Amino acid sequence: MEWRPGTCRSTDISSRDEPATSYPARMDLAQATPLTPLGEGRFGVELPEEFSIGGGKPNGGFMLACLGKAAVAAAAEQGAEHPHPISTGASYLWSPDLGPAEIETDVQRVGRTASQVTARLAQAGRVAVSARFTLGALTEGSAPFWGENPPPPLAPIDECIGFGMANRPANGTQLLFDPDHALQIGPDGPSGNGSGELRAWFRLDGDRAVTPVELLFVSDAMPPATFSVVQTGWVPTLDLTTYVRAVPAPGPLRIRFRTTIIHDGFADEICEVWDSEDRLVVQATQICALRLPTG
Amino acid sequence: MEWRPGTCRSTDISSRDEPATSYPARMDLAQATPLTPLGEGRFGVELPEEFSIGGGKPNGGFMLACLGKAAVAAAAEQGAEHPHPISTGASYLWSPDLGPAEIETDVQRVGRTASQVTARLAQAGRVAVSARFTLGALTEGSAPFWGENPPPPLAPIDECIGFGMANRPANGTQLLFDPDHALQIGPDGPSGNGSGELRAWFRLDGDRAVTPVELLFVSDAMPPATFSVVQTGWVPTLDLTTYVRAVPAPGPLRIRFRTTIIHDGFADEICEVWDSEDRLVVQATQICALRLPTG
Repeated sequence: MEWRPGTCRSTDISSRDEPATSYPARMDLAQATPLTPLGEGRFGVELPEEFSIGGGKPNGGFMLACLGKAAVAAAAEQGAEHPHPISTGASYLWSPDLGPAEIETDVQRVGRTASQVTARLAQAGRVAVSARFTLGALTEGSAPFWGENPPPPLAPIDECIGFGMANRPANGTQLLFDPDHALQIGPDGPSGNGSGELRAWFRLDGDRAVTPVELLFVSDAMPPATFSVVQTGWVPTLDLTTYVRAVPAPGPLRIRFRTTIIHDGFADEICEVWDSEDRLVVQATQICALRLPTG
Repeated sequence: MEWRPGTCRSTDISSRDEPATSYPARMDLAQATPLTPLGEGRFGVELPEEFSIGGGKPNGGFMLACLGKAAVAAAAEQGAEHPHPISTGASYLWSPDLGPAEIETDVQRVGRTASQVTARLAQAGRVAVSARFTLGALTEGSAPFWGENPPPPLAPIDECIGFGMANRPANGTQLLFDPDHALQIGPDGPSGNGSGELRAWFRLDGDRAVTPVELLFVSDAMPPATFSVVQTGWVPTLDLTTYVRAVPAPGPLRIRFRTTIIHDGFADEICEVWDSEDRLVVQATQICALRLPTG
């Protein structure tokens, strides 16, 4: 998707003053990802306007959360007691339209420690996202056995600033950027502080706890970190890996999203997410394509 | 696979004094990954003793390199001009035996910037490794457009020390550890400096350049970084993601392999690889299961 000035504006993601046209004006993330069982590991799903990006296309992390729900349900049907997506990897092949789509799953293995499932989201019979899941069981409230990765400093949430898409109805999620690690919108598109790093708070309306499966959405909720370094067209995700390391405590999450090297037209983007008790709950990485300015 | 004292010893990986039984005594990585085209995107492959780990099982990175070769070949057959595995993600379902196996590929998309392929390695009709590839074209000798990640200090290669498996014939690769970031073998198994970080040189006999597809092997060539922190049984990889960021220059590579958080029986392991010109050529991450000591 190319960058089009005017599709972004400086506000939070849940543009509450914009009524939905074909969907309810408010849609909670949990309400937005219902699955309709179709039998034999297949599920129907709706890709709503509330979880779209500029150009009326579904958000990649939203589709991943839907796939994750389907993977957990399919494994449970085969006797797995693994409700959490410990690891997921997804290839993005093309961007489907908003509206109905279908998910197909294959349970590869139901094990003692983990179960493994592949899942594909298709529209009109064509696979748009192809993902694999390793499912397991995390313990609520547990502390790491070893290692630490404390959250970076962020300004208090009420001093942080939004960055969102226009013409999109509210979806009950907010992304609020640390002013020193935010993007600004200019006539040529978004730009940042040049560090390649964005920091933001993520919260659900009412600060309810984000579930492990919903963390798949959070892991790809940020705008491209490359915008902090170079203005380009939109930066499509080619492949996304997300590890869910812990069950989040209630309250807002903190996200650090950064690119480290832009090379030969590809950029890595690393996402880390901490819960309100300073525990690392997500480690994610993606590789993106970007068309660099020449000369 | 459980840890069994005696299957490791303090030497380099290419135990040159151990003759092979059923394979040539020396096997170059390139010679070890030939594919036999079987038509319709299928390929035959041999999993040789030279690229095994303790217990006579094939090395996970070796299987990934075979899958990568197959993915590139399958995409080329469909007109793709994308010889390099920019991104790959693999789920490890179970560990096949040494000997013949079969790879099946599906080309999902042949695009302008990238092509995407899924590939599975099966034995006796059962899928052991399920992988997806994003292929592209890297430019030899190119420098990053932005960003830097310089290699960490390592002792000179001739002051570094080996750590390998007994009873395995030579395979033309060497892994030589920085003494301050190595593992030692004791009666209870390997242990390290407690930092969770290993550093090593990797080289092919003759210091020939490692090809981009061979980097898939390198990305999983290290023993578990968790051994630096805690002695457990073997630490099986559940899911591995590897990005190939540049074409390596000739000469030895440097690897940093580290775990950052061990939590709820799962550990992340991050692998970075630099070439002889200090360019980052690999970014990889895997999630492993480990059974922690209780009490």
